[in-house]
Amino acid sequence: METGKKKYSTVHYQGYLQLDKILHAQHLRSAEEEGPPVHDEMLFIIIHQVYELWFKQLIHEIGSVTGLFREARVDERNMGAAVARLQRVIEIQKVLIEQIRILETMTPLDFLEFRNYLFPASGFQSFQFRVVEAMLGLKETERLTYNSQPYTSAFEKEQREKLESIQEKGTLFTLVEAWLERTPFLQFGDFHFLEHYRLAVQRMLGKEEEAIRKSEYLSEEEKEQRLKMLGSADTYYHSVLDAEAHEQLRREGKMRLSYKATIAILLINLYRDEPILQLPFQLLTCLADIDELLTMWRYRHAQMVLRMLGRKVGTGGSSGYDYLHATAVKHHIFTDLHNISTLLIPRSELPELPPQVKKELGFYYSNQ
Amino acid sequence: METGKKKYSTVHYQGYLQLDKILHAQHLRSAEEEGPPVHDEMLFIIIHQVYELWFKQLIHEIGSVTGLFREARVDERNMGAAVARLQRVIEIQKVLIEQIRILETMTPLDFLEFRNYLFPASGFQSFQFRVVEAMLGLKETERLTYNSQPYTSAFEKEQREKLESIQEKGTLFTLVEAWLERTPFLQFGDFHFLEHYRLAVQRMLGKEEEAIRKSEYLSEEEKEQRLKMLGSADTYYHSVLDAEAHEQLRREGKMRLSYKATIAILLINLYRDEPILQLPFQLLTCLADIDELLTMWRYRHAQMVLRMLGRKVGTGGSSGYDYLHATAVKHHIFTDLHNISTLLIPRSELPELPPQVKKELGFYYSNQ
Amino acid sequence: METGKKKYSTVHYQGYLQLDKILHAQHLRSAEEEGPPVHDEMLFIIIHQVYELWFKQLIHEIGSVTGLFREARVDERNMGAAVARLQRVIEIQKVLIEQIRILETMTPLDFLEFRNYLFPASGFQSFQFRVVEAMLGLKETERLTYNSQPYTSAFEKEQREKLESIQEKGTLFTLVEAWLERTPFLQFGDFHFLEHYRLAVQRMLGKEEEAIRKSEYLSEEEKEQRLKMLGSADTYYHSVLDAEAHEQLRREGKMRLSYKATIAILLINLYRDEPILQLPFQLLTCLADIDELLTMWRYRHAQMVLRMLGRKVGTGGSSGYDYLHATAVKHHIFTDLHNISTLLIPRSELPELPPQVKKELGFYYSNQ
Amino acid sequence: METGKKKYSTVHYQGYLQLDKILHAQHLRSAEEEGPPVHDEMLFIIIHQVYELWFKQLIHEIGSVTGLFREARVDERNMGAAVARLQRVIEIQKVLIEQIRILETMTPLDFLEFRNYLFPASGFQSFQFRVVEAMLGLKETERLTYNSQPYTSAFEKEQREKLESIQEKGTLFTLVEAWLERTPFLQFGDFHFLEHYRLAVQRMLGKEEEAIRKSEYLSEEEKEQRLKMLGSADTYYHSVLDAEAHEQLRREGKMRLSYKATIAILLINLYRDEPILQLPFQLLTCLADIDELLTMWRYRHAQMVLRMLGRKVGTGGSSGYDYLHATAVKHHIFTDLHNISTLLIPRSELPELPPQVKKELGFYYSNQ
Repeated sequence: METGKKKYSTVHYQGYLQLDKILHAQHLRSAEEEGPPVHDEMLFIIIHQVYELWFKQLIHEIGSVTGLFREARVDERNMGAAVARLQRVIEIQKVLIEQIRILETMTPLDFLEFRNYLFPASGFQSFQFRVVEAMLGLKETERLTYNSQPYTSAFEKEQREKLESIQEKGTLFTLVEAWLERTPFLQFGDFHFLEHYRLAVQRMLGKEEEAIRKSEYLSEEEKEQRLKMLGSADTYYHSVLDAEAHEQLRREGKMRLSYKATIAILLINLYRDEPILQLPFQLLTCLADIDELLTMWRYRHAQMVLRMLGRKVGTGGSSGYDYLHATAVKHHIFTDLHNISTLLIPRSELPELPPQVKKELGFYYSNQ
Repeated sequence: METGKKKYSTVHYQGYLQLDKILHAQHLRSAEEEGPPVHDEMLFIIIHQVYELWFKQLIHEIGSVTGLFREARVDERNMGAAVARLQRVIEIQKVLIEQIRILETMTPLDFLEFRNYLFPASGFQSFQFRVVEAMLGLKETERLTYNSQPYTSAFEKEQREKLESIQEKGTLFTLVEAWLERTPFLQFGDFHFLEHYRLAVQRMLGKEEEAIRKSEYLSEEEKEQRLKMLGSADTYYHSVLDAEAHEQLRREGKMRLSYKATIAILLINLYRDEPILQLPFQLLTCLADIDELLTMWRYRHAQMVLRMLGRKVGTGGSSGYDYLHATAVKHHIFTDLHNISTLLIPRSELPELPPQVKKELGFYYSNQ
Repeated sequence: METGKKKYSTVHYQGYLQLDKILHAQHLRSAEEEGPPVHDEMLFIIIHQVYELWFKQLIHEIGSVTGLFREARVDERNMGAAVARLQRVIEIQKVLIEQIRILETMTPLDFLEFRNYLFPASGFQSFQFRVVEAMLGLKETERLTYNSQPYTSAFEKEQREKLESIQEKGTLFTLVEAWLERTPFLQFGDFHFLEHYRLAVQRMLGKEEEAIRKSEYLSEEEKEQRLKMLGSADTYYHSVLDAEAHEQLRREGKMRLSYKATIAILLINLYRDEPILQLPFQLLTCLADIDELLTMWRYRHAQMVLRMLGRKVGTGGSSGYDYLHATAVKHHIFTDLHNISTLLIPRSELPELPPQVKKELGFYYSNQ
Repeated sequence: METGKKKYSTVHYQGYLQLDKILHAQHLRSAEEEGPPVHDEMLFIIIHQVYELWFKQLIHEIGSVTGLFREARVDERNMGAAVARLQRVIEIQKVLIEQIRILETMTPLDFLEFRNYLFPASGFQSFQFRVVEAMLGLKETERLTYNSQPYTSAFEKEQREKLESIQEKGTLFTLVEAWLERTPFLQFGDFHFLEHYRLAVQRMLGKEEEAIRKSEYLSEEEKEQRLKMLGSADTYYHSVLDAEAHEQLRREGKMRLSYKATIAILLINLYRDEPILQLPFQLLTCLADIDELLTMWRYRHAQMVLRMLGRKVGTGGSSGYDYLHATAVKHHIFTDLHNISTLLIPRSELPELPPQVKKELGFYYSNQ
């Protein structure tokens, strides 16, 4: 920079964006056949190229966030950037969903005009989308197979290795999980978070029970019903808070997050107003949003395919719609962040934090 | 109007919109308890009131469209209005889905602060939403039960009767179906649409077969695979076009539209460029959009509930999420409009319409 | 196709979309300097590439619609396609606006990190955007200059000639205008639309006047005020309906559409329910939407630039924001379609069409 | 709650939402006249009621945030809630803008059918919208007049007093401004932020100058142009950072924020990664978003009115469109937050904070 060599070389919009490449990469297969090219094939190509460009951006953003979380101790100065980049991921996801409406202006009859030329290309072959999924933390072993083939069979060896190396190097899921497990405040000096929480749950359930029994408004039948609900809540709290039971749920595939990380997200959710937990809470919210939007994208995608192709049976015996819909139902990554709601208790029932803990969670400036 | 009595009485924004009612209809239950009212309860009330206002508007629009289709002969001058009103329904649906994001700014912990006061109120008790579903054509017998109760058990006798009368008077589904069945062009003079279509399918499959066999690009294995696909397409076309087979699918609940109406939507889709079919095609597109957006609304709603409540088991043994998700999967109305894609053939394979038929489908002005 | 040569050559997702080009066209200038590349430059490149891809699609769609309107007699069978393609343009425009939110996740401070490397590249150099504007019908002579330079100075000779040739070959504006001027129903046999319309306006204003005078609700002052408004409406109708006055407004740049085309859009708006006018009305609505969305895009773009750069004075003495905002205010194309509202009268006041005219506007099938 | 009195009284959806009021508050004026009621008047009423409900929610949210900022020392534990509630305001604003599309499904001709009955009611009479504007900080003295009347002339004495009291009690603008002025880190021990910033600007401009002069890529002419730009940037930085010059700009109405508050937002923008500044930075971003969306709403609203009414001259001599468009251009509140971009310098040029200051800006836990 000292010499200003590059910095002040001039650059043109066209060249900077490499528009000669970008705008000359649309070759209509229908143009190779007799007869006029099919008008709508252009849209089909361009919207998929746009999707791939956004996938590249998603990979760039998710990669940078996993980078920040790869440190043994995540610098708090980076939390703002981590949250901001995940919010960018969210905004991109919203546009990915919205723009399906553009593709839906292509009618099934229009699609039919060139569909035949595409065989056997398939969105299924998008490598970048697999990378996005893998970086977020979708495990290969948890994926559905398509036509009894593992999804990686669509890719070359080099690509398969890349996908495997993502898992090995740590995904957003595993890195955030490890970061959560390191949360120092679960047991801080004399403060055992889980113990206090358990007592609070006990106290809350006791108060509820008394309130129900004394209520002037409920009929006996309603009281019984409410008490039964209370009982099952009780069971639920206990089973989930039990490390053993938790491991069992993980083995059954019903939970993914480790026991310790789960307790940490409980703590962050309950005490999110404490300064040191504000950004971590936002981070967890972003991850839940990303998971939700990914699922929404799968549903919209499945619906669009249904509309475009109907339920024609594919080569392997299952329709595209059925497969895509099934992935929407199964391919979740951060579901445990949604499930944590089950364990929350109202703020009014929360145990007050001891002054020293409160101080530790605050800013240096405010606490001297 | 002659006397200008009402017309020129003055009216004020506040009075016209009855804002004294609208803006004084938010009573926070949490305000009745000790302690300060819960901030987020206001949002909870207001967003649900907004939903109900939009539901009222949907009922108004759908009701007017069913009105237009109740005539023995639907006036073509009304088709523009019918399509425009359904497009309004679509725009409203998009906002209904969008505004879930507002509700999601309420965190599960905030919801917990007042959730207890709401028991046993439930969105399940929205009568207007049931009316919307019924008017569109969702049949009571096809609905999922919730906690083993028919969904009407949430309502009073008078409301249940209203829902039943909607079905009896004709829903958007049944009225459009009847209108489709009356399509005069399925058999018009010497022109038998279905016969021509069958021949076209035959010809197209034959050409495909030949092209595959002669292809220099496909391996033997690929040829075999493609020919097998072609064979199953063949079977599919035949089974669907068979009136008997169609009735069987209806009995099994796999199709809802009658055979004749199905042939009509095939005709409209294939010859949608003919002037008299342009608006009918738009109408069918709107109905497919409405169905898709209703389904999308159900998915979003289910996801939001999952996030807010987790998977806490409800009083009846199933979680709110599981029920709502199941309705998204099952409660479709116009699925047959999506499925028709399976039967379409490319325009280039379409039989040319005889000149007289073409004339009949055009404008009077252009055809003298 | 007979030989299946190309059709059954196989194609892969990656190759079909030319992803080797698309995904290797992001070269970060900041990567050439000392220090790490700037994270956010990737977003900056990719979102602009996405914009350019969509611009290419817009050109494809608008070009195909102008093609349909270049015929001396526009085939009614093409009206459905014309409307559908303009609706696609609309959906693309919505996404172009929406995705500004993605760019806004880049903060001004982040932009500063690489902004210097871009000099003097500018969005102003997007040739395709100029093509879109020119194809829609924005005239070079009506454009604002930027830093006292005509906007074409940013382009090479060849590009400038392309822009000029678009104007010469006919834009969407001029082609639709010519098509409107050919509307056969303005004077049809004995039916003179404009005469009937004038009488209707007269009758309506007379009735209004009488109603105001007789009103029991209005005070004398209010009556006077209302009568004054009525008087100015009267003047307005007359001046606009006068061919001479209209030409004067055109010369002053207050209107663009010719007198005859203006009368045609009045007819289409008023009698849009007649079958032959339904699609033309939709077409006009699409054009008004496109104009509105283009203006909205300009406002959003200007706001985003204000936010990113503040009001730093540019090289030529005016800020980017000021210029962009000014284009939003001035660079309208189809404003006359909005202004037509001023001339509409309620359906109840509309003269009934003579039976023969009504027949001519209907379908052949329905009118024999 | 101890007695469970209210808590366990049962509540029904219908009653909780007061649907008897909400759903019986739509009285069509057109229903009072001869002839059938006008179909589209229902939409007109309902969408305005929805707007008013959302305005009530906005007032609730903005009111709660101003409450938090009314404290002499804003509790950092409340910053998370403040940001979250402003983000809710943002989500509501997005929907307010989106749903204009629903109203645009009503065509001008449809509006004409009942428009006459509304006289002289006007959206201008929405008291709640004025409250929203006032709470955010739009000053009465800075408002445009409408037909030469102050905007408060549309309201009763009691309402006018309410609007005045909002200004007196402090608006979001004035309260945030006061909070910014109290920022302790502008001068912290030996650290004088502004001095360091000034030096950094100096150093940066010097380096730029040298780089330009030495560049091998720039022509002499380009060098001169770049150096001229640099010179004007220099002038700009100095004039803005001068307290006296700043006051002058305020007097001329070109800036609203006080000098000290302006320096504070500069600090927060530049050092936003320091933990104690992360939430304040998000808060400022939210305020800029809210301002931008409010402006966008005004543009959309103006466009919609133009489309619906054309440019018919109103009672007072100016069209509704002209007035609404002018408010979009002038009625900004937090513009200074956009303008701050002009003063930012790249992170690489930022002076390193002294270790003690860095410590003070961090968490207690991390800094012991």
